[in-house]
Amino acid sequence: MKKASIISIGNELLSGQTIDTNAPYLKRKLLKCGIPTVSSFTVGDSEEAIVRALRLSAEEADFIIVTGGLGPTDDDLTRQAFADFLGDELVCDGEQLGKIEDYFKSRGYKMLENNKIQAMIPKSAEAIDNDRGTAPGILANYQGKILAALPGVPSEMKKMFKVSVLPLLKTSSGGQYIVTKRLKCFGTGESNIAEMLGGLMDRNRNPLINITVEFGVITLYIIATAEDENTAREMVEAESKVLTEKLGDYLFGYDDETLAGVVGKKLTDQKKTVATAESCTGGLVAKLLTDPAGASEYFKQGWVTYSNESKTEQLGVDAELIEKNGAVSEEVAAEMAKGAMERASADFAIAITGIAGPGGGSENKPVGLVYISIASPHKQITKRFVFLHERGFVRLRTAKTALNILRTQFLI
Amino acid sequence: MKKASIISIGNELLSGQTIDTNAPYLKRKLLKCGIPTVSSFTVGDSEEAIVRALRLSAEEADFIIVTGGLGPTDDDLTRQAFADFLGDELVCDGEQLGKIEDYFKSRGYKMLENNKIQAMIPKSAEAIDNDRGTAPGILANYQGKILAALPGVPSEMKKMFKVSVLPLLKTSSGGQYIVTKRLKCFGTGESNIAEMLGGLMDRNRNPLINITVEFGVITLYIIATAEDENTAREMVEAESKVLTEKLGDYLFGYDDETLAGVVGKKLTDQKKTVATAESCTGGLVAKLLTDPAGASEYFKQGWVTYSNESKTEQLGVDAELIEKNGAVSEEVAAEMAKGAMERASADFAIAITGIAGPGGGSENKPVGLVYISIASPHKQITKRFVFLHERGFVRLRTAKTALNILRTQFLI
Repeated sequence: MKKASIISIGNELLSGQTIDTNAPYLKRKLLKCGIPTVSSFTVGDSEEAIVRALRLSAEEADFIIVTGGLGPTDDDLTRQAFADFLGDELVCDGEQLGKIEDYFKSRGYKMLENNKIQAMIPKSAEAIDNDRGTAPGILANYQGKILAALPGVPSEMKKMFKVSVLPLLKTSSGGQYIVTKRLKCFGTGESNIAEMLGGLMDRNRNPLINITVEFGVITLYIIATAEDENTAREMVEAESKVLTEKLGDYLFGYDDETLAGVVGKKLTDQKKTVATAESCTGGLVAKLLTDPAGASEYFKQGWVTYSNESKTEQLGVDAELIEKNGAVSEEVAAEMAKGAMERASADFAIAITGIAGPGGGSENKPVGLVYISIASPHKQITKRFVFLHERGFVRLRTAKTALNILRTQFLI
Repeated sequence: MKKASIISIGNELLSGQTIDTNAPYLKRKLLKCGIPTVSSFTVGDSEEAIVRALRLSAEEADFIIVTGGLGPTDDDLTRQAFADFLGDELVCDGEQLGKIEDYFKSRGYKMLENNKIQAMIPKSAEAIDNDRGTAPGILANYQGKILAALPGVPSEMKKMFKVSVLPLLKTSSGGQYIVTKRLKCFGTGESNIAEMLGGLMDRNRNPLINITVEFGVITLYIIATAEDENTAREMVEAESKVLTEKLGDYLFGYDDETLAGVVGKKLTDQKKTVATAESCTGGLVAKLLTDPAGASEYFKQGWVTYSNESKTEQLGVDAELIEKNGAVSEEVAAEMAKGAMERASADFAIAITGIAGPGGGSENKPVGLVYISIASPHKQITKRFVFLHERGFVRLRTAKTALNILRTQFLI
């Protein structure tokens, strides 16, 4: 199998002030064509560092894609590093120089002296056309490996990669294909999922399964490798079927699907509506439910009742009940849900009351204590949770947990 | 000057399906303490690849920070790679094992056999406590260099880095100091800000100024380098003073301050309260206003009135007015704000109605059209905007614009 390595160049990447989205983009595109990336490097604007990264990449990869360092200024050193690595001199590419001159002329700008350097290419390499900017790319061959240098500007890089690099890699990759699929779960822990899958998690299997977790959402990646795309796709689908059965209720969606998106789709399909009554999540559940386009089909009305008075005035929660049990209590959560459902004439209501922190906790009611209540005309579920984390996490985890209860217990 | 290298581990990073935010975070934090990152590597879940990256990092860096690969499953290989690299065996850390057992006990979960491996640490290394998850980190010494392994989960990683790793690096770094400060602006474009600053943007100055922009928020980074921390800090503060004067009203805060946080603080200081009435933003403004701890001081009540009926029933917007002007109109926005202010007995109300898209647009009312109205007892401002972007952007940009109008026009 042919393998790739990516090198991202730029001091702004090493200072952490710019997030590199080029490398993930290239990795996804390469993987789709069956070319896994085995390593990626980020180095600064230094010729020595770029040459070193090229050497390391060439040790393990067949295709090396470099982004950045092709601009006209003194800190753009990819051209020089390529020449050094290839043992070549830089020569002016007359065709590219003409294109750069045209670029400035057509925009009525004066071409600066330092733009000329952008037409310099290592002698044994070819230029890659860039119709969106002044920096051509570089395509070179090194001991049978393909090296490409592309600009760091994402829109220029993507266009040039798709048009001029990817087709070449496809024909050279020797036809191995990788197909991936993501399965998304909620409601249990990573280790429990791993135990449920048992031998399927074996590192030497094909398809391979990887697990990641964020804010309670567990993502399983199925990665199948085969000699043609159809076979890889069939392997992924077969594996997905097995996993789907094993995961049962924990599984809520595939690939880019979100918990709120799946809940919204189920509500739309079932022609049902929902209302929200939120205290500590402060509108987050409503925000998530209205993220998808078409949310007006199912989202009726939301209340953010932060104060005790607003819980009473807006949702009709008995003031004495709040006095007796406290605003963060099972009883108040249940009344909020009922009030929201009735006042919005919705089929379901989600109510949340809790202590997101960092202040406001006590021994009996610690920070992270949350009550979630979901009501329908025939059924109501109210649950207590303690999420031990900082405020933002407690709020997001609470919102997702509420959506998941609605999904698994009411939208069956 | 001491230098750092970062290694990010995970097949999901190499497949491009997860964007690595850990490395940029670490790079920023390190740079703040005068420790530049000279390279960063991304490698897969392979012991061999991790060991190789450790070797490369050790060649050029004094501090090596590794994230990921500390989970309980078979594809978590950082522990083994550290042991291999250090020439050490893995031993069970009794204290950490106890903590992991407690973690499960306190949550009422059964601890699984595979969680025990998380207590294994190379013999010559120390464990780093993790109070948010089950994976302790690893702190080791290799030929005078400091190596740290942290979990890949960002919230766990950040906490552990700040508490247990950074203080150690600070005392070991010595030398040159870099102090940075961020100035955050809203309400104009990047090029206008650059023009306002003129020669201050020169690339050869110290302090240096960098600009980034996201969702309308323009961040200016002041970066000062000096041989001692005090001098660097004084340089930053002097520059900050100059910029603060030049930026005027556009400047809303510094460093980690957010627009909603600044608005919340002003409301608290002025002992004022706010209510929200949202249509297309679906609770996002309420969510942002309640992000800060202590939001109950100023946040009175929020409505998410997605449907026409709920605008009438909940906020008292005249049904005929909606019929005549449409729900997305200046008149309806103004009525929503008044209704919310009165019904919540709040000092201010923010109302939003618009077309977030992708559907629902027409020639007269295109996707991205938004009306924002802010009401106080003595003053009301209603403004029309068209934000040409996808749904998520329109919603966030709208919410931030509304907060900015409240900040600049009402909370003076």
